[in-house]
Amino acid sequence: MKLWRGGRLATLAGEQGWGLIDDGALLVDGDQLRWVGPSADAPAADEVVELHGALVTAGFVDCHTHLVYDGNRANEFEQRLLGASYADIAKAGGGIRSTVAATRAASEADLLASATRRAQALMREGVTTLEIKSGYGLDAATEARMLRVARQLQSLGLDVRTTYLAAHALPPEFTNADDYITAVCEWLPELRAAGLVDAVDAFCEHIAFSPAQTARVFDAAQALGLPVKLHAEQLSDQGGAALAAGYRALSCDHLEYLSPAGIQAMAAAGTVAVLLPGAFYALRETQLPPIQQLRDAGVPIAIATDHNPGSSPTLSPLLMLNMACVLFRLTPEEAWRGLTVNGARALGLRDRGQLVAGQRADFCVWDAGHPRELAACFGHNPLTERVQQGMQGAV
Amino acid sequence: MKLWRGGRLATLAGEQGWGLIDDGALLVDGDQLRWVGPSADAPAADEVVELHGALVTAGFVDCHTHLVYDGNRANEFEQRLLGASYADIAKAGGGIRSTVAATRAASEADLLASATRRAQALMREGVTTLEIKSGYGLDAATEARMLRVARQLQSLGLDVRTTYLAAHALPPEFTNADDYITAVCEWLPELRAAGLVDAVDAFCEHIAFSPAQTARVFDAAQALGLPVKLHAEQLSDQGGAALAAGYRALSCDHLEYLSPAGIQAMAAAGTVAVLLPGAFYALRETQLPPIQQLRDAGVPIAIATDHNPGSSPTLSPLLMLNMACVLFRLTPEEAWRGLTVNGARALGLRDRGQLVAGQRADFCVWDAGHPRELAACFGHNPLTERVQQGMQGAV
Ligand SMILES: [Zn+2]
Ligand SMILES: [Zn+2]
Repeated sequence: MKLWRGGRLATLAGEQGWGLIDDGALLVDGDQLRWVGPSADAPAADEVVELHGALVTAGFVDCHTHLVYDGNRANEFEQRLLGASYADIAKAGGGIRSTVAATRAASEADLLASATRRAQALMREGVTTLEIKSGYGLDAATEARMLRVARQLQSLGLDVRTTYLAAHALPPEFTNADDYITAVCEWLPELRAAGLVDAVDAFCEHIAFSPAQTARVFDAAQALGLPVKLHAEQLSDQGGAALAAGYRALSCDHLEYLSPAGIQAMAAAGTVAVLLPGAFYALRETQLPPIQQLRDAGVPIAIATDHNPGSSPTLSPLLMLNMACVLFRLTPEEAWRGLTVNGARALGLRDRGQLVAGQRADFCVWDAGHPRELAACFGHNPLTERVQQGMQGAV
Repeated sequence: MKLWRGGRLATLAGEQGWGLIDDGALLVDGDQLRWVGPSADAPAADEVVELHGALVTAGFVDCHTHLVYDGNRANEFEQRLLGASYADIAKAGGGIRSTVAATRAASEADLLASATRRAQALMREGVTTLEIKSGYGLDAATEARMLRVARQLQSLGLDVRTTYLAAHALPPEFTNADDYITAVCEWLPELRAAGLVDAVDAFCEHIAFSPAQTARVFDAAQALGLPVKLHAEQLSDQGGAALAAGYRALSCDHLEYLSPAGIQAMAAAGTVAVLLPGAFYALRETQLPPIQQLRDAGVPIAIATDHNPGSSPTLSPLLMLNMACVLFRLTPEEAWRGLTVNGARALGLRDRGQLVAGQRADFCVWDAGHPRELAACFGHNPLTERVQQGMQGAV
């Protein structure tokens, strides 16, 4: 057993408060936290690491990413700033279609190489659990390839959770969205049997799939015992959140146009609200998610990078902490809970996100005095150590 | 002499365009670029470095920072999000006064230690030239200490330019701003004689100093042959830009409320417009600087981090590239020129910022295909090598 001693712990124990222990210690037993408390009361251990007053927090849980893909969309970014419209760019084969084409054309090795670099960037900022969605294949073979690549990232020293998001966009070889949803539902059992799917997601929006089509995907998931999540109410109120809550969804994500009825349904179902400030920022959105109403209803709020090549090409959970505060007016503590314990809840995980005995030994050491400092700054990474399942990783 | 060969060079040669050389080479002679062109035409050299297709750009010139200080303002950041007003925070001794108190109380060694960590963070993102302002001392001894610390950072392997900004705020021991300006002007000659001042700056704003007070500071600078800069029209139009242009200011900075007359005066004087998207973002400003009018008038636009503990606690020039595009709608090329060649111009420097023979050998190597990719992403740092005055630095 290893004792980490003399740190400032922000445990986030309980439902609110930083849970600070000023001169605190963590006893790590294998991949678990065996004991957490004041250094003065710490049990003996074979090995002791002195923290010299450094800040210790739980590792980040990035619960919403599209990390596996090929190509980049910097050209579109530039074209838009040079005056091209979204229609111009779509006509030129841009947008998600360009990412789908590049991802379909990429080998598994190429996808793994680029996703590895991205995962390592997230790890360098303290991510210890990472959700990754499929959804740039939109055919059985490429969706499977994306999910296999996601699974392989597990060996880097982080816990990967995979989400099947074939219902992300209509691929060019389909003209009828209902026909495509039929295929999406048909592909799922084999992927699930291969151990590639931890949850099922869809994009319910007027530019994507209808609530009725979303329900068909959820039915297929439910038949296989898989939990669901939903990209909901990002651009308009489709009633997606209430639909998802009816399936006891783990989370609904984006939620700028979430209605009061959607909030109540989420609260009743225990569904987490995953807010994505990176996409809000990059798309220059102005409609804020209903933060105060979510608080009032007791809906847990998570924060994620939503890393993707189009609307949120960021690899910085620390920047998301700051953007959650600056753009969404979350408190620093809410933002931290959003990227730790509530991020875990959005993945159905209760064994991580707080520095509490019995939780996984996933934690970060920072050159900072208080976690609020990491939320107040932007574009700065003071991580000095990342521990995942008790193992110190090269970061 | 050392030849760097086989890179994708974004030279930014000339007044516009990326100046791309797809398979390009740089010949470095001491601290200078001796030759730049296609690898196939490169002269022989004693030593050759293969770039394997990596992107090479000029090093970043961060032309506006307040890097030397003690304390942090994360507590205020949190208090505001918990509902405190600016007035509440000022009453509790917050704001710039808290930074002044902490900086006055800090030893030169402590200031050097914290500024070193910040400068190294900027260097890890490719900064090779860094401007640092005084202005958290507001007394002769502390202003001098800040400037000495700034000068000492030169030894880290970056070129530091110092700016005297005692006219930043009224210190608590003065009640009359004119009296304080008299002191500011009196302190300057000795600091200049000690080699601590490269330029003189002031904050002209209704919450700081008037145009008449600013003019007194500029007169003192001019009498000593020092160039001037100005924090101008950030919160209101004070006519500061036109005033500064009358002194042939190197730059006017912020400029959200810049008037057409101010733009014309800057254009006529060759004054650079330094835009600060980090502060714009963190303060949640909505009034954009008049970008198109600046373009139309031919005023060069620079971009900087404005690193400071209150309104722009960022250490990421890469994030500023992105924010300049997302928030100010600059093109990626404009943003890049803003952080390289035009940043240098804002410091009166013509010997850096482009990959052209005769310029300083200050350049960066990136794991990217095109400089626009670095502007399109946010919260990501693909720097692989930083060369300053011909020397590879540990980053
Ligand atoms: Zn998403
Ligand atoms: Zn400033």
